[in-house]
Amino acid sequence: MEMPQPNPSVLAKKPELIARLKGVLPEDAIISDPFETRAYECDALTAYKCPPLLAVLPGSTEQVSRVLSICHEMGVPVVPRGSGTSLAGGALPTEDSVILGVARLNEVLETDYDNRFIRVQSGRTNLSVTGAVEEEGFFYAPDPSSQLACAIAGNIAMNSGGAHCLKYGVTTNNLMGVTMVLMDGQVVELGGAHLDAEGLDLLGLMCGSEGQLGVVTEATLRILPKPEGARPVLIGFDSNEVAGACVSDIIKAGVLPVAIEFMDRPCIRATEAFAGAGYPDCEALLIVEVEGSEAEIDEQLGTIMQIARKHDPVELRQSQSAEESAKIWLGRKSAFGAMGQINDYMCLDGTIPVSELPYVLRRIGEMSKEYGLDVANVFHAGDGNMHPLILFDANKPGDLETCEAFGADILRLCVEVGGCLTGEHGVGIEKRDLMVDQYAPADLELQMAVKDVFDPKWLLNPAKVFPLAASDARRVAAE
Amino acid sequence: MEMPQPNPSVLAKKPELIARLKGVLPEDAIISDPFETRAYECDALTAYKCPPLLAVLPGSTEQVSRVLSICHEMGVPVVPRGSGTSLAGGALPTEDSVILGVARLNEVLETDYDNRFIRVQSGRTNLSVTGAVEEEGFFYAPDPSSQLACAIAGNIAMNSGGAHCLKYGVTTNNLMGVTMVLMDGQVVELGGAHLDAEGLDLLGLMCGSEGQLGVVTEATLRILPKPEGARPVLIGFDSNEVAGACVSDIIKAGVLPVAIEFMDRPCIRATEAFAGAGYPDCEALLIVEVEGSEAEIDEQLGTIMQIARKHDPVELRQSQSAEESAKIWLGRKSAFGAMGQINDYMCLDGTIPVSELPYVLRRIGEMSKEYGLDVANVFHAGDGNMHPLILFDANKPGDLETCEAFGADILRLCVEVGGCLTGEHGVGIEKRDLMVDQYAPADLELQMAVKDVFDPKWLLNPAKVFPLAASDARRVAAE
Repeated sequence: MEMPQPNPSVLAKKPELIARLKGVLPEDAIISDPFETRAYECDALTAYKCPPLLAVLPGSTEQVSRVLSICHEMGVPVVPRGSGTSLAGGALPTEDSVILGVARLNEVLETDYDNRFIRVQSGRTNLSVTGAVEEEGFFYAPDPSSQLACAIAGNIAMNSGGAHCLKYGVTTNNLMGVTMVLMDGQVVELGGAHLDAEGLDLLGLMCGSEGQLGVVTEATLRILPKPEGARPVLIGFDSNEVAGACVSDIIKAGVLPVAIEFMDRPCIRATEAFAGAGYPDCEALLIVEVEGSEAEIDEQLGTIMQIARKHDPVELRQSQSAEESAKIWLGRKSAFGAMGQINDYMCLDGTIPVSELPYVLRRIGEMSKEYGLDVANVFHAGDGNMHPLILFDANKPGDLETCEAFGADILRLCVEVGGCLTGEHGVGIEKRDLMVDQYAPADLELQMAVKDVFDPKWLLNPAKVFPLAASDARRVAAE
Repeated sequence: MEMPQPNPSVLAKKPELIARLKGVLPEDAIISDPFETRAYECDALTAYKCPPLLAVLPGSTEQVSRVLSICHEMGVPVVPRGSGTSLAGGALPTEDSVILGVARLNEVLETDYDNRFIRVQSGRTNLSVTGAVEEEGFFYAPDPSSQLACAIAGNIAMNSGGAHCLKYGVTTNNLMGVTMVLMDGQVVELGGAHLDAEGLDLLGLMCGSEGQLGVVTEATLRILPKPEGARPVLIGFDSNEVAGACVSDIIKAGVLPVAIEFMDRPCIRATEAFAGAGYPDCEALLIVEVEGSEAEIDEQLGTIMQIARKHDPVELRQSQSAEESAKIWLGRKSAFGAMGQINDYMCLDGTIPVSELPYVLRRIGEMSKEYGLDVANVFHAGDGNMHPLILFDANKPGDLETCEAFGADILRLCVEVGGCLTGEHGVGIEKRDLMVDQYAPADLELQMAVKDVFDPKWLLNPAKVFPLAASDARRVAAE
């Protein structure tokens, strides 16, 4: 993956930059030792690495504002970083950039159960938001797999979803307001603890903007009352087509499960070998979970099982206990770990119209043979969000490049059938050069012109989201 | 309400403009006769009127593009218009503007039940979208009161909600993509028939932008399977405080009704006199409706009635039949008509945190005495969206001005308690000068800078949304 050449004049300013930062940050919030900055050289897309010029860990919105103001004046690029769990390289540094980590901004600022919101600093982890309200019977709905570690800041940057987003929506549906610092140090408030505000919806624009528009330091999040209970059913089929048709029929029936997860045979086999969840050896597996009171669960699962039976499942197993539910989910939740045991893998994240599922799986199978790399498919089937895992050997020369080319072809296929390049992981560096497959030049130009408004010098999170040539040209023109 | 002075050079260009428009539109799509343009002199905020220079009714995206391109070249302002049902003056012309009506763009372009979307031209009415899919058991969720008449274009411009948006969200939650024409005639595609796309969320930005960024000609909308049934319960209280507390408790219990409507005594009395819906004569009335199968409805209403009983209601009446349900809703749906029988009224649209309800109602009562004008309150209580109706006499000199001042004070009160100026009607001309009460100068500047990107000459929907002095300055600077 090509990265932009570092700006030698920025590299030369390092001592001056450190001196100025010491004026606005405590000593221990500035990390400049090359050994220590290595901790920030990559995120969860570990195939790409580059140590930053510096890393800073401000402890307040005001400190963030002062850091950005200094970097803006000195023309130093800034890479905002949540917990570094991005799978798309969203927090990958460049050699001449300052990593701005929000890890020290992790306080709960306000909880309001009557009006159902919580206000937190953006470095707080996803799961600890729920942790702060669960005693009162509430939870925060978006639940990315990395929820134990990932920060709300990163969730907002990537508009993260999770297995439960079919029912509760993704981050943008659960985000009410933010405090954001612009690259020049100005602090703005977008949205708030109320229904959609008037004027242009800059909050909606900002959510999912991958650190291109500003650094979010505080967030007001919708919290929901916890449902009484939840129960999954496991359904096995001997064909992907039939499993896909079953998903369509469930959705059409007006039942709204919290999750419909889909696994194909390679994925089932690998997870079964790893986790021993008792999955049947079949072509395709659905895990459908519903929530509510016991009566609601019985009624909804009744409808779902009735639909499933019409499609001649080879397995139809309703969980009978909390233990069994945990076991059913164990396999799904171990899928990535199971793959990691066998191989290096690259996890993709495209979306497709649900009806294209059988065609897309067939084509991926064919491409897998052409490229000579195996693929396992895990899938948030209810909303058409695929996570193909391409298996490769990082130690074999050329394998990563083949894997990248294969991945790009899969994502192009998603766009071809009417889907898009990413459901919840973002573009980062991984998919920036595929943006031209999704967007016409006029559409991309409009997005970049909006970025101009927020960050005219193109200093924020460089080399991400937009095709490298385009963002580089923009940055050079602004110099 | 002050309007900008018409630009004499634009007025002088009328013959040239008509000649050029004739080159791109059929004769009957250009309305230039001053008698006929009167049909476009106002929208549903009839207190303000101004006939436009011209009106055009293009029949395709391409025609819209050509019209805008001509107006852009000639420096002629354009006011996009759906069905003209805006309650905020969102489609009020200026003397020197062209009304661009989308009424002829009313076709269904595609329906896809497997992937649950419909693609329509933007002039199609809200209710006829549901009409196109209801035979297959689907519906389009946002349901503004004007749904029989209002166009999808206007729904998108105002991010419209409706009584059922507590459960299903407002327009932005049900909008998947649009085709939009920029002021210079360029056609862009935002979003599509898939989960949130990558890059900056221009679709989210556009939704609710009140015609400031472009003219939407096609929309892809999420459709949902119709629930099996629905049933309301009517709950009367002898105090607003207690009714407010009951709403909070229902929401906290984790039940998600499709609607929680709130009416105060003046509103109950007027609608009862008008519609005879059998409402009790009490201080505050809630209509709570749930949807689902019979079993789900029984269970949810059971929980709701149990909560209501703890608050000592003076009336607690669960509907026993379809007729009774219709009668319960009849009063609520007649509320605006009932008021219109008695008086002229101005319908406001602010939002507040639900917990502030009793305080805000008390303050409105006090202000009502100070201003000498009566107020009736109808309220989407579940999401804190108020619709106070201020009664006045349009024929009495000074009454409209008093009403405007009173309305502005109510909206400022909404902002003070942590709410905002509009829930679903938009800013239009009505609230543009109150934007400074909600937004800091830096926040407003950022919004206007984003508008600059889409419409650098500030020709689209002039004199709306932003404070008049600010938008005028921007327009003059761009000349």
